[in-house]
Amino acid sequence: MNQNYIKADKWCIIEEGFDTENVKSSESIFSIGNGAMGQRANFEESYSGETFQGSYIAGVYYPDKTRVGWWKNGYPEYFAKVLNAPNWIGIKIYIDDVEFDLATCKKISGFKRELNMKEGVYTRNFQAVSSNNVEINVIVKRFLSLDIDEVGAISYSIKVLKADAKIGFEPFLDSGITNEDSNWDDKFWNTTNVSVSQNRAFIEAHTMKTNFETCTFMQASLNYNGKEVSALQGEKSETYVSLKFEQNVKAGETLILTKFGGYTVTRNHDANELVSAANDTLDKASSLGFDVLLQKQKEAWASIWEMSDIVIEGDVKAQQGIRFNIFQLNQTYLGTDSRLNIGPKGFTGEKYGGSTYWDTEAYCIPFYMATKDDKVARKLLKYRYNHLEKAIANATKLGFSNGAALYPMVTMNGEECHNEWEITFEEIHRNGAIAYAIHNYYRYTGDYSYIPEMGLEVLIGIARFWHQRVNFSKDKNKYVMLGVTGPNEYENNVHNNWYTNYLAKWCINYTLTQMANVKNGYPDDYHRIMGKTKLTDRECDKWKNVADNMYFPYSKEFGVFLQQDGFLDKDLVKVDDLPKTDRPINQKWSWDRILRSPYIKQADVLQGFYFFEEDFSLEDLEKHFDFYEPFTVHESSLSPCVHSIQAAKLGRMEQAYNFYLRTSRLDLDDYNKEVEEGLHITSMAGTWMSIVEGFGGMRVIDDKLSFKPQIPNQWKAYSFKVNFRNRIIKVKVTTESTTFELSGSKEVSIRVNGKKVELFPDELVTV
Amino acid sequence: MNQNYIKADKWCIIEEGFDTENVKSSESIFSIGNGAMGQRANFEESYSGETFQGSYIAGVYYPDKTRVGWWKNGYPEYFAKVLNAPNWIGIKIYIDDVEFDLATCKKISGFKRELNMKEGVYTRNFQAVSSNNVEINVIVKRFLSLDIDEVGAISYSIKVLKADAKIGFEPFLDSGITNEDSNWDDKFWNTTNVSVSQNRAFIEAHTMKTNFETCTFMQASLNYNGKEVSALQGEKSETYVSLKFEQNVKAGETLILTKFGGYTVTRNHDANELVSAANDTLDKASSLGFDVLLQKQKEAWASIWEMSDIVIEGDVKAQQGIRFNIFQLNQTYLGTDSRLNIGPKGFTGEKYGGSTYWDTEAYCIPFYMATKDDKVARKLLKYRYNHLEKAIANATKLGFSNGAALYPMVTMNGEECHNEWEITFEEIHRNGAIAYAIHNYYRYTGDYSYIPEMGLEVLIGIARFWHQRVNFSKDKNKYVMLGVTGPNEYENNVHNNWYTNYLAKWCINYTLTQMANVKNGYPDDYHRIMGKTKLTDRECDKWKNVADNMYFPYSKEFGVFLQQDGFLDKDLVKVDDLPKTDRPINQKWSWDRILRSPYIKQADVLQGFYFFEEDFSLEDLEKHFDFYEPFTVHESSLSPCVHSIQAAKLGRMEQAYNFYLRTSRLDLDDYNKEVEEGLHITSMAGTWMSIVEGFGGMRVIDDKLSFKPQIPNQWKAYSFKVNFRNRIIKVKVTTESTTFELSGSKEVSIRVNGKKVELFPDELVTV
Repeated sequence: MNQNYIKADKWCIIEEGFDTENVKSSESIFSIGNGAMGQRANFEESYSGETFQGSYIAGVYYPDKTRVGWWKNGYPEYFAKVLNAPNWIGIKIYIDDVEFDLATCKKISGFKRELNMKEGVYTRNFQAVSSNNVEINVIVKRFLSLDIDEVGAISYSIKVLKADAKIGFEPFLDSGITNEDSNWDDKFWNTTNVSVSQNRAFIEAHTMKTNFETCTFMQASLNYNGKEVSALQGEKSETYVSLKFEQNVKAGETLILTKFGGYTVTRNHDANELVSAANDTLDKASSLGFDVLLQKQKEAWASIWEMSDIVIEGDVKAQQGIRFNIFQLNQTYLGTDSRLNIGPKGFTGEKYGGSTYWDTEAYCIPFYMATKDDKVARKLLKYRYNHLEKAIANATKLGFSNGAALYPMVTMNGEECHNEWEITFEEIHRNGAIAYAIHNYYRYTGDYSYIPEMGLEVLIGIARFWHQRVNFSKDKNKYVMLGVTGPNEYENNVHNNWYTNYLAKWCINYTLTQMANVKNGYPDDYHRIMGKTKLTDRECDKWKNVADNMYFPYSKEFGVFLQQDGFLDKDLVKVDDLPKTDRPINQKWSWDRILRSPYIKQADVLQGFYFFEEDFSLEDLEKHFDFYEPFTVHESSLSPCVHSIQAAKLGRMEQAYNFYLRTSRLDLDDYNKEVEEGLHITSMAGTWMSIVEGFGGMRVIDDKLSFKPQIPNQWKAYSFKVNFRNRIIKVKVTTESTTFELSGSKEVSIRVNGKKVELFPDELVTV
Repeated sequence: MNQNYIKADKWCIIEEGFDTENVKSSESIFSIGNGAMGQRANFEESYSGETFQGSYIAGVYYPDKTRVGWWKNGYPEYFAKVLNAPNWIGIKIYIDDVEFDLATCKKISGFKRELNMKEGVYTRNFQAVSSNNVEINVIVKRFLSLDIDEVGAISYSIKVLKADAKIGFEPFLDSGITNEDSNWDDKFWNTTNVSVSQNRAFIEAHTMKTNFETCTFMQASLNYNGKEVSALQGEKSETYVSLKFEQNVKAGETLILTKFGGYTVTRNHDANELVSAANDTLDKASSLGFDVLLQKQKEAWASIWEMSDIVIEGDVKAQQGIRFNIFQLNQTYLGTDSRLNIGPKGFTGEKYGGSTYWDTEAYCIPFYMATKDDKVARKLLKYRYNHLEKAIANATKLGFSNGAALYPMVTMNGEECHNEWEITFEEIHRNGAIAYAIHNYYRYTGDYSYIPEMGLEVLIGIARFWHQRVNFSKDKNKYVMLGVTGPNEYENNVHNNWYTNYLAKWCINYTLTQMANVKNGYPDDYHRIMGKTKLTDRECDKWKNVADNMYFPYSKEFGVFLQQDGFLDKDLVKVDDLPKTDRPINQKWSWDRILRSPYIKQADVLQGFYFFEEDFSLEDLEKHFDFYEPFTVHESSLSPCVHSIQAAKLGRMEQAYNFYLRTSRLDLDDYNKEVEEGLHITSMAGTWMSIVEGFGGMRVIDDKLSFKPQIPNQWKAYSFKVNFRNRIIKVKVTTESTTFELSGSKEVSIRVNGKKVELFPDELVTV
């Protein structure tokens, strides 16, 4: 833990005191979003200190040049850069004609940020003596509406404290922005029109190359003692437009500027209707007014929390951690649009680029399946089905044929947009995670219809890829898979990564099984798919031959599967025996040293044991956990959660709890000293899994929900709800017992610690 | 062979006919250089067609941003970009006030380029009907002086053919240039002053960031019927300066513009004396005049050829090929400056960046040792000694300690400037080539003094690196070397690359032997070096332990050393069995497919058999050649020469000859369809080796020069000279016999086909 400046609180994220050192980190932590847009917690007023400005619109990106050493065939044409969008939150403040700036104030006191996760509102207040010696008190509230997802609202109130002062507000829009990661101060936006109409303003701009057209808009009004102060003419340039308000304010009195703003985009509107759509949105928001919109915001969040909250008793930090994770996931993706996905940094930073990684399938889908209804997970699955043609095109570009599909490592629209050969070309296990999610979806939701409708085509493309990706080794008399990168990216270009080989074998067998199921149960779909894919029995036999003869590296000496060929050639010094000064190795060691070392960035063999636990005994798990965990440095945000779940399964609750803390407070406590770059959104779903699957032991076994509840020593109780096949089950685990409570009208049969338990609506069952 | 447009000729490179498709390729092929500067064969006059402008100054580069996916610790700060330097050759031509441009001419006939390699002069002539219908005949001669290496000279003559015309010349300097590979039209030069003085002009400019200060200069004079035409005022801007000449010319008469130009740089002068140095250079050149300077050029080249020429009888294309290679090597590096080295593209293009690769040690040093005196090779060795501190710093940055040295893969000044992890961090065999060159230098020149003076320190740094780079594998009970890239760059991050392991073992043993030799023979040096390096017996014992217990992958089944662990897992389809449409694989296949394949870009195991041939029997060589050559695609320019030498050694002369042709005419016939990017300079030394070491079978064995001459069926005879320990031996091989002729005053004993032969001065010995 590197920071301790966030105050522990069950429902709020709180920072107290102003420290310029924390500004960029807090901008990340206090980020807000509503699934359609989001923004870092930048100040509304000008700030001349260090800041990382970020406002993001879902699905809007820029195809940056692929930067590599030497070009390699098969590289994607571009790297999808997450774009900082035009600023609509800005409000310049003038006090007696001098611009107010927290970086130049003579004194700042009572500075407090509070992100109220229960209500979805971000508040900032402080008292300051401005550079020209005027004392004011400021309270700013801001939220991005869940109800009208194109709009956000700001209430900026200034109370003049000791002497009268003239206060000026200049709410503005600005499209003259760049990215933090711009290499040459490149601009990514072309502004085509800037207009003002009474107290509203609009900037129409489109992204270069991708031509995402947007209208950034605002409406502002100023209230002084219950009266509207009229807007004056503001500034207007090619990329900037503002309104101005001025008011002489008596000491002790308060001015409140209300600003609505946001974006209308061509994902939802015709290009020539963006301004009128913006006007409609402003009409809607302003007719409700700030207070009503805020009330609706609270209600919307209440309904999200009603289903997805996890309550932890006796451990405020753990409680705050899990709620922060659930809150951020819901800020990022709400499951309302199958064209969108869950970017690894959500709307909180630029890093990683692209919106979709295998994180979605491996980590996020379980969370969304259990805390929303099955339509959301189905949307995420459909997203990949919609990209199947592009995955086939991607594989074709790499030399595969006959409809083999390789899904991209990173994408915005189905096209690959990551640009390192060891990832793009080799980290192909992602393909398996996409197949696994189809299995997981059906297992959890019981909705088989996705497979004949869409899933089987995806599976066939993936099975074809695996079949072509292996080659027969005469030397081993088995099929081998050369040149891959497993989930542990601290190894590149390895041979026979056990996890990838296992996934490949599983994918082929699973696809063959589903083909048989669809043939029996959905003959029309079967014939449609066979016609489309031109799959023959002969090809299926070849797949089967590969699956049946796949090579798996194994050590007799240690009785474990090897992460890859040659793993035992490494210098097997355990992580605990490394000097502390050498860690984190990704900051202290050169890349070649990392690659040669045995150290594991994130679960690799153990990821396979997590996905396919039914294939292995508890003894197997223990042996592999004890072999690999001591070499694991957990320098990926996706690592601790899987280890927490496995440790819990092995009954090692102390270890599981430590992994849980690390995953749940990764950003709040800035474990990796990088929170200023943005939050780790997708791994937050892993935090949820740590509790529900780890401590709660939730699984679906033989079509039934099953639990093996445990509780960390540090906790008195915890409870969560899951939606299992439209039955809402509330589970509460205390140190004494576990209670189950079913809502709705239909009973359900579950298993607890292996024993069948019948749940009836509104009846509390204690085990 | 992809082109056949270069006419065969023994001494000249000739292009006939104007084809816009060939312009960029010819710009490469007709490049000229004098070791200090060089340039592509761009037209002097404006040309609006496709062209790749390039003028280069030795040692001048720009530290470009290292462009990679994600930053990795240990990456170099910059990538050394070869910089296009200010243009001094430019001469705009106006005919009746209309600018002349070959791309817009109504007719062009008799277009001919000729690079006279014997004399070092490039000539272009043509007849053209200009866009405004004036018919002219143009002859342009250009050369870069070997005598005054800061200056080049151009004679541009225009004969007006059918009707009188006003001819304007605008000789200019231009520093407003960019690189062909600029990503964003970045400028790399800051111009600080532009000045004119009578018929001279100067542009002072420095490279951004590296601050190489230069003065680009010119002097021009126009002669019409024996009279000087005075210069008029030209144009002048921030980055451009010109002179102007105008003359009404009668039909049938000729105008000749003579232009001297070039660069003075801070490598040779104080920064504030660049202009005066330029004036001095112009004084010198112009007092000699174009014709005398040209005469001196011919003499200088005659003296180079006297020593380095290889004469081939009965095969004009082979003759042209080898002379082109020898000519280009001498244009690139003449051995006069130990701060310079031999860039892989010389002065003919921008690709690769940096000036120094392991090519210098592995390929170029033998050529320079035999065709110059031993001072040149010693300069190249000293270059590395001068960089030892930086090689230690580079290794330290990567986590090595205690004075371990890792020489850079690519450098301008000793700092690593290549930016791909699989090369920078892993292609470490380069370190071994640097040690090998020390051995090779002593073996050939007999000059041991380099080792106690400088070489041993280099060897110790290198031995320390190898000792630290391996680790002990309990599994194999041997030392292994994980995560390397061998000479075959179609494999990345492999384990136990046989060549690298062998080199490492050899380096350690060689270093220990030299320590003993220096201790005995040069005790003062020994104590100085031990004091400086703090080397202990204990450390040496550890080295020895590594060398004695190094692991070498071996296949019992095939009886060969394996290129690396797991090579036999590949799908071992021979190159001949690949569809033709799949080749070259580096243009047709994705990178992952190449990596997984068994295909070899250039000699890897066979490179080891070349370096250490005394360690292996002919039967061993044959077995390894037959195993690896069928998987070798020779897509590196450095590949065919080693194979040619090995094939000759195995008595397979037809194969050796084919490899020879491929290496010697690689650029002239544009085998790899990329000659427009520039020439493959360093591999040209390999061509020389193919004849001298391959066909001639030259070696140094037991301190004696030894030959096993053979001759390809296609040739009547070939001859070459070598300087062996200051004895010049001319070797002529015919289909019947071999003759040896020794110049100078001291006899020498050599071996021919294993038998001792005594050579006496000026006495012809026929074997």
